[in-house]
Amino acid sequence: MKRIGMLTSGGDCQALNTAMRGVAKTMMNSAQDVEIYGFLDGYKGLIYGNFRIMQNSDFSGILTKGGTILGTSRTPFKLIREPDENGLDKVEAMKQNYYKLKLDCLVILGGNGTHKTANLLREEGLNVVTLPKTIDNDLWGTDMTFGFQSAVNIATNAIDCIHTTASSHGRVFIVEVMGHKVGWLTLNAGIAGGADIILLPEIPYDINKIVEAIQARNARGSHFTILAVAEGAISKEDAKLSKKEYKEKMKNYKYPSVSYEIAEQIQKRTGIEVRVTVPGHTQRGGSPCPYDRVFASRLGSEAGKLILDGEYGFMVGIRNREIVKVPLEEVAGKLKMVDPDASIIQEAKMLGISFGD
Amino acid sequence: MKRIGMLTSGGDCQALNTAMRGVAKTMMNSAQDVEIYGFLDGYKGLIYGNFRIMQNSDFSGILTKGGTILGTSRTPFKLIREPDENGLDKVEAMKQNYYKLKLDCLVILGGNGTHKTANLLREEGLNVVTLPKTIDNDLWGTDMTFGFQSAVNIATNAIDCIHTTASSHGRVFIVEVMGHKVGWLTLNAGIAGGADIILLPEIPYDINKIVEAIQARNARGSHFTILAVAEGAISKEDAKLSKKEYKEKMKNYKYPSVSYEIAEQIQKRTGIEVRVTVPGHTQRGGSPCPYDRVFASRLGSEAGKLILDGEYGFMVGIRNREIVKVPLEEVAGKLKMVDPDASIIQEAKMLGISFGD
Amino acid sequence: MKRIGMLTSGGDCQALNTAMRGVAKTMMNSAQDVEIYGFLDGYKGLIYGNFRIMQNSDFSGILTKGGTILGTSRTPFKLIREPDENGLDKVEAMKQNYYKLKLDCLVILGGNGTHKTANLLREEGLNVVTLPKTIDNDLWGTDMTFGFQSAVNIATNAIDCIHTTASSHGRVFIVEVMGHKVGWLTLNAGIAGGADIILLPEIPYDINKIVEAIQARNARGSHFTILAVAEGAISKEDAKLSKKEYKEKMKNYKYPSVSYEIAEQIQKRTGIEVRVTVPGHTQRGGSPCPYDRVFASRLGSEAGKLILDGEYGFMVGIRNREIVKVPLEEVAGKLKMVDPDASIIQEAKMLGISFGD
Amino acid sequence: MKRIGMLTSGGDCQALNTAMRGVAKTMMNSAQDVEIYGFLDGYKGLIYGNFRIMQNSDFSGILTKGGTILGTSRTPFKLIREPDENGLDKVEAMKQNYYKLKLDCLVILGGNGTHKTANLLREEGLNVVTLPKTIDNDLWGTDMTFGFQSAVNIATNAIDCIHTTASSHGRVFIVEVMGHKVGWLTLNAGIAGGADIILLPEIPYDINKIVEAIQARNARGSHFTILAVAEGAISKEDAKLSKKEYKEKMKNYKYPSVSYEIAEQIQKRTGIEVRVTVPGHTQRGGSPCPYDRVFASRLGSEAGKLILDGEYGFMVGIRNREIVKVPLEEVAGKLKMVDPDASIIQEAKMLGISFGD
Repeated sequence: MKRIGMLTSGGDCQALNTAMRGVAKTMMNSAQDVEIYGFLDGYKGLIYGNFRIMQNSDFSGILTKGGTILGTSRTPFKLIREPDENGLDKVEAMKQNYYKLKLDCLVILGGNGTHKTANLLREEGLNVVTLPKTIDNDLWGTDMTFGFQSAVNIATNAIDCIHTTASSHGRVFIVEVMGHKVGWLTLNAGIAGGADIILLPEIPYDINKIVEAIQARNARGSHFTILAVAEGAISKEDAKLSKKEYKEKMKNYKYPSVSYEIAEQIQKRTGIEVRVTVPGHTQRGGSPCPYDRVFASRLGSEAGKLILDGEYGFMVGIRNREIVKVPLEEVAGKLKMVDPDASIIQEAKMLGISFGD
Repeated sequence: MKRIGMLTSGGDCQALNTAMRGVAKTMMNSAQDVEIYGFLDGYKGLIYGNFRIMQNSDFSGILTKGGTILGTSRTPFKLIREPDENGLDKVEAMKQNYYKLKLDCLVILGGNGTHKTANLLREEGLNVVTLPKTIDNDLWGTDMTFGFQSAVNIATNAIDCIHTTASSHGRVFIVEVMGHKVGWLTLNAGIAGGADIILLPEIPYDINKIVEAIQARNARGSHFTILAVAEGAISKEDAKLSKKEYKEKMKNYKYPSVSYEIAEQIQKRTGIEVRVTVPGHTQRGGSPCPYDRVFASRLGSEAGKLILDGEYGFMVGIRNREIVKVPLEEVAGKLKMVDPDASIIQEAKMLGISFGD
Repeated sequence: MKRIGMLTSGGDCQALNTAMRGVAKTMMNSAQDVEIYGFLDGYKGLIYGNFRIMQNSDFSGILTKGGTILGTSRTPFKLIREPDENGLDKVEAMKQNYYKLKLDCLVILGGNGTHKTANLLREEGLNVVTLPKTIDNDLWGTDMTFGFQSAVNIATNAIDCIHTTASSHGRVFIVEVMGHKVGWLTLNAGIAGGADIILLPEIPYDINKIVEAIQARNARGSHFTILAVAEGAISKEDAKLSKKEYKEKMKNYKYPSVSYEIAEQIQKRTGIEVRVTVPGHTQRGGSPCPYDRVFASRLGSEAGKLILDGEYGFMVGIRNREIVKVPLEEVAGKLKMVDPDASIIQEAKMLGISFGD
Repeated sequence: MKRIGMLTSGGDCQALNTAMRGVAKTMMNSAQDVEIYGFLDGYKGLIYGNFRIMQNSDFSGILTKGGTILGTSRTPFKLIREPDENGLDKVEAMKQNYYKLKLDCLVILGGNGTHKTANLLREEGLNVVTLPKTIDNDLWGTDMTFGFQSAVNIATNAIDCIHTTASSHGRVFIVEVMGHKVGWLTLNAGIAGGADIILLPEIPYDINKIVEAIQARNARGSHFTILAVAEGAISKEDAKLSKKEYKEKMKNYKYPSVSYEIAEQIQKRTGIEVRVTVPGHTQRGGSPCPYDRVFASRLGSEAGKLILDGEYGFMVGIRNREIVKVPLEEVAGKLKMVDPDASIIQEAKMLGISFGD
């Protein structure tokens, strides 16, 4: 008999349900008896003991369903160790609920922040298996995270739509793609959508280079330019600021986001009309793409197997096309960023894409 | 022998190429000789004599292609009668180019502003046939405009994507849909996407009613709410202002758009996190949907036939499922707005949708 | 207090759930108490008393869900009056279940066959309100049926995909579109997909004209041709046969469907490779398109209102963009076919499309 | 100065244009002068000297365009060495055209058969660089081929559409997926679409196991079953036949394809209605998905770089997420098949999927 708790934490993304279905089906199809407790709204559910006992039927028909049937919430790691407004020790509360329900293991689906807390729970002695969920593909220890490819599709589709308008009107268009610290999503959507300029958090930009790239296009007769800009794109000057100085600067930032600042600068220097489009949260939503469905199903299945085998303390990920288990302590707190010298960047440059550097 | 000029003016939208292909194929398949002059970038091309002679092959393979192969520009009607910076009389210039090329007719594809200028050219003695292009579906004299249904699809898709996130996080989400003066797009995308609250320019909102609707949903256990808000949504107070007072107010408006103001008010009054998504120009882009392809092909074909028959001075539209010709003087300068008492509004209300009124 | 029974009958299609949600929401949002009995698997459920009492939550989240939550089955009208294998009088059984549950009305969603039975039940004294569901758009009394536009999208998408292959390989491709007796779906998907030849049940074809059209294209340098062929496409010779003769012929028909016969004939006469694609039942499936969602929601809502008002014996349809109620006796047993002289056919011909006639 | 010839051979697929654009842009953006000769309709163009000199503009706007702008044809390897109907030695003809145009290298995009011929040309002394194109993902030496993920999307979409119909009607549905010898496409689409049974060429099936799986589902209350069946699915009995015996058997095969035979057997043994859907060539068509666009762009770019560097005799592929060059002699004549013991198969089985074995 296995009793497992399950929760999804952090920003939602595609294929969360797919992955949970994978875990549940694998366990329910096994010879062992299984009871699954679904904690509601992320770690909150575990802290406050809000859960429901999941039936076989709960996992039926959710393969293609976006979002998470358990709900989620953002519970920043730095607040996890602080007592709540009623003085409750959250870590202790999670442990107590775990022991009270006599759980054998927690299955936790989440991104970076989620993994820090998951690792903390492991250090506190709980059995934990995690699954790498994020549209950012920035989790250390796995080549890929689920949600990423679905988000690439949505962001690319936005660029595709903008393409027809940009080329009809002869304008500069900026499509702002999700990603505060890491540029995988922008990089892939940018290449896929045929963006002319791609700005990533990992490669600080020089506005002069951007303007040059636009003008070079105009000189060649291409009277429109499309920029794929990550939310976290940063200028070379700002990249030199200390964390504190940058924070200070952003306090009085007059733009909704960096795309609008870049737009204004381009417009000022070139006189060309610039428009900004922000697909925003749509990038997290909708049905997972087939790639993510297969991938999340495989991960879920292997996670279920790990638990059946009594192997805990791992994130289930993929490396070199094989599903692998990665010790949680290796994952937590690290980011997988775009290397400015990576071959994909070189290839993009050979295709004529400017990174503004 | 027929010599026609063709141009697309105003914001681009889906099925412009489809419609032009319809005109061209119909004329080229006819017994008459045909020469088509494509003016570039809207009325600008006609004013300054920028055109290219279109070949049969130019219209091949563009049925499904978004944007416009001729390019477009916005040339506001009120500037049309004013001389340009070199003192050129634009109306006169257009007439001269028309006569110089010995055109039999101009085919003009555009929305409201475009139709005013088209009608002016008709009054000036030119032969004109127009096609109703706009994602807003606000052209008088036709039940439908092409671009509209494609835009509904994109805006609905955005709401669909937001749905999974909203329901996973228990938040309020606002999706801002294009439409400054007219709400057809927001209304249809809102109903199709299952929005709980829809705000249209034609139905001024009361923020209290919006908050009530959100709270009523929460009381029923629905812990998220989705609003489809037209760019031109307006509060009851603002709707009472004179045009001048309103303009004055908007001068110092501190929000990027009205959705952000509504978001702030909801957040303040309910304490619930509110997020805004702006699909923006993506709503104009991408391949036309099958509905628009059939519709624009039919319109184009009938426009071609009108010209072959030497019938000028009409917009080709649809009424009661039949393609009709509508005298240009009846179309120009009028808007087809959503009637707050229309049956579709009543039906939406019966479904439980709030219009904030 | 209103007690209504609800059932979906015949082939499934998109927006069935949308329409039922519309009825249910409208009634549940009203001042009246409402109880909804959902009969399972079409008329079968009503005959054998298989139903479940529907909750508010059953209608939540199904706006975009394909298929029917009640299940469906095909129960041909000519079998309805015959006793079942146990001697049960089916019509009597349906009446008894209706009276036993003290229903005020039946809401029946279906196509042509379904409407015949619905009208029979009306004649037998039951209160009935129906909704026009079919991808064929062949129901009399309404300009449009829900499911149709979604099916057009899927069939068009198939033609779009074939387009790239056809043009790359220089072949003739046939896409077989659903529709045994009526060609609306093929006609619209054919125009939207840019088919060169469209064959409809309503316009018998001459294989020589088809071959001529293909050769004319080749002569013009277009080395591929795409045919959109309705399942029920028929040659001029076969169209002359009596019903009995035709039946006899089809008994020994050696092709899976008429498309394969046409393919063989083209290949024989032109030497060009011909490929057949049959999207089949995919045309009925998947999420309803926004057009169908709005349309089915509106119909459902007005059907709910009719019942609340105690008005029975109608199909709720649309005419000239207004939702209307059509007496059931006017609908049952009639087909709305494509008129070979309709303007849309003329327009398609002007675009260069051949109908093989 | 580099002069390269370019051709696409074999069945078309998505991202052929994307990959050619990648090669061309990389070379044209380089410091070297470049001339590109596009041979038309595959090896045919090279044999008969049909080509056009490609301009920069030919590669513009084709990133997202399905099919191949050069056309393609199937030229089986075993016919390559035979003279044509006029006695022309094809290999010799290709060499002569290569030398006549003073080409530095041929860029050849194709699948298995194409690679055999490409390798032959290399053995004959021509410089060749190839790109792995096929929806089957069966090329040796690369983890992935472009076209595959796009085809998975289309096949999955077909299963998704069938899902709603299958569940509404309580039937068994077979979706036949492309793949005569290799099951990657069926395997991935099957898992992504939630198929209950997946039949691959690599895992011969036992019809009794299939029937058992269906009956087990019915016993659990799931009254419908979906099978994803590869074109080349084979029964255990047939798998035991010698190649000659099997060929003999298929000569008189009375079914359009194996799916129809399986359908008949299931229907006979279970009495449940079975329907077959064949998406067919749609799986090769349409715009490439973002994954394929990025992948093919990267491959094209690296192929361009190889040529600029004067490195010939390689296929450019991907291994462990890095773009690699693979000696052509290692690639030609080998198939990358699904290993019945692969972890993805085990994972699928844990999810409850039957492979009929």
